[in-house]
Amino acid sequence: MNTNKVFYATNPSNNELLEGEFNEATFAEVDEVVTIASQIFNIYSNKDNESIADFLDQIADEILALGDQLIERCHLETGLPHARLIGERGRTMGQLKLFANVVREGSWVDARIDTADPNREPLPKVDIRHMLKPLGPVAVFGASNFPLAFSTAGGDTASALAAGCPVIVKAHEAHPGTSELVAQAIFKAIEKCNMPEGTFSIIYGDKTVGESLVRHSGVKAVGFTGSYRGGKAIFDYANSRPEPIPVFAEMGSTNPVFILPNALEENGEAIASGLVASITMGVGQFCTNPGLSFVQNTKGDTSFFSCIKGEINNAAAGIMLTTGIKNAYDKGIESISSLEHVEDFADGIAGDNPNSGLPRIFKTNIDDFKKNEEALSEENFGPSSVLVESNSKEATLEAARNLKGHLTATVFGTPEDFENYKELFKILETKVGRVVINGYPTGVEVCHAMVHGGPYPSTTAPQSTSVGTNAIKRFVRPVCFQNYPSELLPEALRDENILNIWRLVDGELTKNVIA
Amino acid sequence: MNTNKVFYATNPSNNELLEGEFNEATFAEVDEVVTIASQIFNIYSNKDNESIADFLDQIADEILALGDQLIERCHLETGLPHARLIGERGRTMGQLKLFANVVREGSWVDARIDTADPNREPLPKVDIRHMLKPLGPVAVFGASNFPLAFSTAGGDTASALAAGCPVIVKAHEAHPGTSELVAQAIFKAIEKCNMPEGTFSIIYGDKTVGESLVRHSGVKAVGFTGSYRGGKAIFDYANSRPEPIPVFAEMGSTNPVFILPNALEENGEAIASGLVASITMGVGQFCTNPGLSFVQNTKGDTSFFSCIKGEINNAAAGIMLTTGIKNAYDKGIESISSLEHVEDFADGIAGDNPNSGLPRIFKTNIDDFKKNEEALSEENFGPSSVLVESNSKEATLEAARNLKGHLTATVFGTPEDFENYKELFKILETKVGRVVINGYPTGVEVCHAMVHGGPYPSTTAPQSTSVGTNAIKRFVRPVCFQNYPSELLPEALRDENILNIWRLVDGELTKNVIA
Repeated sequence: MNTNKVFYATNPSNNELLEGEFNEATFAEVDEVVTIASQIFNIYSNKDNESIADFLDQIADEILALGDQLIERCHLETGLPHARLIGERGRTMGQLKLFANVVREGSWVDARIDTADPNREPLPKVDIRHMLKPLGPVAVFGASNFPLAFSTAGGDTASALAAGCPVIVKAHEAHPGTSELVAQAIFKAIEKCNMPEGTFSIIYGDKTVGESLVRHSGVKAVGFTGSYRGGKAIFDYANSRPEPIPVFAEMGSTNPVFILPNALEENGEAIASGLVASITMGVGQFCTNPGLSFVQNTKGDTSFFSCIKGEINNAAAGIMLTTGIKNAYDKGIESISSLEHVEDFADGIAGDNPNSGLPRIFKTNIDDFKKNEEALSEENFGPSSVLVESNSKEATLEAARNLKGHLTATVFGTPEDFENYKELFKILETKVGRVVINGYPTGVEVCHAMVHGGPYPSTTAPQSTSVGTNAIKRFVRPVCFQNYPSELLPEALRDENILNIWRLVDGELTKNVIA
Repeated sequence: MNTNKVFYATNPSNNELLEGEFNEATFAEVDEVVTIASQIFNIYSNKDNESIADFLDQIADEILALGDQLIERCHLETGLPHARLIGERGRTMGQLKLFANVVREGSWVDARIDTADPNREPLPKVDIRHMLKPLGPVAVFGASNFPLAFSTAGGDTASALAAGCPVIVKAHEAHPGTSELVAQAIFKAIEKCNMPEGTFSIIYGDKTVGESLVRHSGVKAVGFTGSYRGGKAIFDYANSRPEPIPVFAEMGSTNPVFILPNALEENGEAIASGLVASITMGVGQFCTNPGLSFVQNTKGDTSFFSCIKGEINNAAAGIMLTTGIKNAYDKGIESISSLEHVEDFADGIAGDNPNSGLPRIFKTNIDDFKKNEEALSEENFGPSSVLVESNSKEATLEAARNLKGHLTATVFGTPEDFENYKELFKILETKVGRVVINGYPTGVEVCHAMVHGGPYPSTTAPQSTSVGTNAIKRFVRPVCFQNYPSELLPEALRDENILNIWRLVDGELTKNVIA
């Protein structure tokens, strides 16, 4: 990292190098981008709401203005189909515009005002006012599986910029060209919106570059989406700094599914068909991919399983994002196949591409599952999934109690099932960030109520979400102002409430001015 | 820790052992209390708001019902005067009742509802509902300096119980008898309110007991108030667990004070007098004790300094909480005294008690401060403080920029000063949790807007506060419910809004029912 190394992007559909050279950042370059971000932090973080909102909107517009060039380059780098990438671009722009609206509306800062009471006994009460303030420069690691929506201008970047934090992106090595194009769009928006240089930077490189970024004293928080191994390493670097910093690492999970007896009987084939679609969607490369399903088969039903087999047999292998991901997937498959009492239940249609990921379903029963609980509960990133047939409610509840932290859990059932399995829901809400009923975990709505997060090891920050408007709260901390004269207070906390935001005044939520 | 060791409390006023034997917990006992807390977690966390609120109120009432016995024992164990302890008992009860009100009102759960839109293109929108849910059993470490308000039934315990988390307190070794009495009050409240056994437990012991508690897999979060060394050790244990957990450690700070030129000229003596009172209050044993003051003396004023000297010369030494704290204080004094260019400016009236803490003021100038910046910026827990005389605005701003994280910063100034030092405020709000103007940092109001926290190293959790109603948020995480039938939803999220709480419905804050 003392001199630049050059690298190239690879096309996963043919393993050929794509045009365009990228320079791995040196230590000096990492230091430079963080230093400028620190220097302009006070300028950027004190921009008014309207300016920051306009800036986010402008980034969205500039991304769209990149046109087909972006979609084409991204397709070449990831193997993801054009339609998916056009959809993902829309999602990326939608996220930016949603955060722009949150900032424009303004109430997200959690303004709290406790007014003075000079006559209180035994001691007078002083005026105290509270709001959320940005942490400082944020390091964002681009994700392989969402080259737009969770990379350069993705959810982490959008929420950090919305919070008032400068951002330094470490581009994912699998799509540097896409990252560079999006970065250019952000630079244009910075210029047009008159934001300070250093509000956003991008660097390229390997794990060493990432580590030096996380360890830089000027970085005050980290956003990451990726593997457990990558996220845990960053978490450990961050905690071993002289000043530890929060790491919001979303590290994926197995996303357990529970199919209850009556639903299985009444609706088994439709559930099976939807489940296979969810498992194979995007070659299984979603954080919320359902990797483990408990099938409560108390009546010896066979139609669910035969439908799964039929659907998987017709599911074609797809090109995975990188050779590294494809190799890890195959290794995971090998490891599951080697387990005793786990049946290789059904395969998809093999592809002739070296990076093809073959859909695979394994099957076991609840007693044998217990013998392999640890191995079968681990995520294998790709289009594979494990079915656990159970004829015992108690055994399945016990398996639920033994779950580690996951992003999601899903339950298929009828009203009668829900009545019979009430306890299951109480268990699941302590294990995951999102519980889905009669639906599929893939498809993460970007909205106010979304929780894309969960207990460790699905994330390093169970108290947060990385999707939805609440994601902005990751990059702020509360500050209170005691006995401040009005002119020194942030606008959000002045008596007049000129921002017209919701505030907790003496314990009451109101938009009223303070008389 | 395999067999119980017995220990006794010590009276700091005479170093004699007090009556009453206490057993250090064994590993088996630590395991037992955490296991039962885990087992009843789902029962306690699903109690309705009214039941939890009544329970908190009842704890307050039972503490009061302990009567003089509590105050007397606490006085013997801590050397703190009766009047202070009666005040602190009131604060403790006030905190419990404030959290009871927060729970009763109910809006703190951050209910968010995004309703379904089956007709949305290209994909239908599903119903998603979000609220905060308790993390699980919380370990609380009692603080030496607030034997009531930040110990057994103190702010950490009150906020964790309010959040729906069972609590295991590791009593501070300096006041085990006080802790036991308060624990008895909580046990009575558990019985009267029909809460499950294991909702609250208390254990006694040394650092090894504390470590085993933090490392127990059943513990899901930690609250701590105390030294940097203690808090950092717990933080490291927690992060090296197979499942890392959040640690909310408030580790104190130097709480820098800035006295601006016009305020110094117009009001120097009154500020000096108040500052000495703040420095010596409670023998300086407050987390927010002002340990470092920058005095902007551009006009060669001497009255502030002579007033400080006069006031300190009249300030009597007080008995410190423990011999350990007294020895650490003296060692800190020795270390400051040994620094070059730091003047031993003024001393208080020595006491004849072996645990007396002597008020001490040191003085240096801004240039010499820079030579000893690290050493002078460290907290020395007790009634000592460092004055830094400066005749340069730029040098003082530079010192402010170099500050690490602190709980508070304080500025004394006139409107003209504020105009001239605008930048100082922008710097300070990035360094601390609370900025105080023309007041003193000691005295932490328990209210909605309070932030008792700050960037590392003042805490391990800059995104939280340990005092005030927001402290409840430390012990919860967001969970969302997708496509749930009404009867399975938590009450807070059902259409009818029978709890009548504020909810963010499709982005609008409202108490309305959902039609």
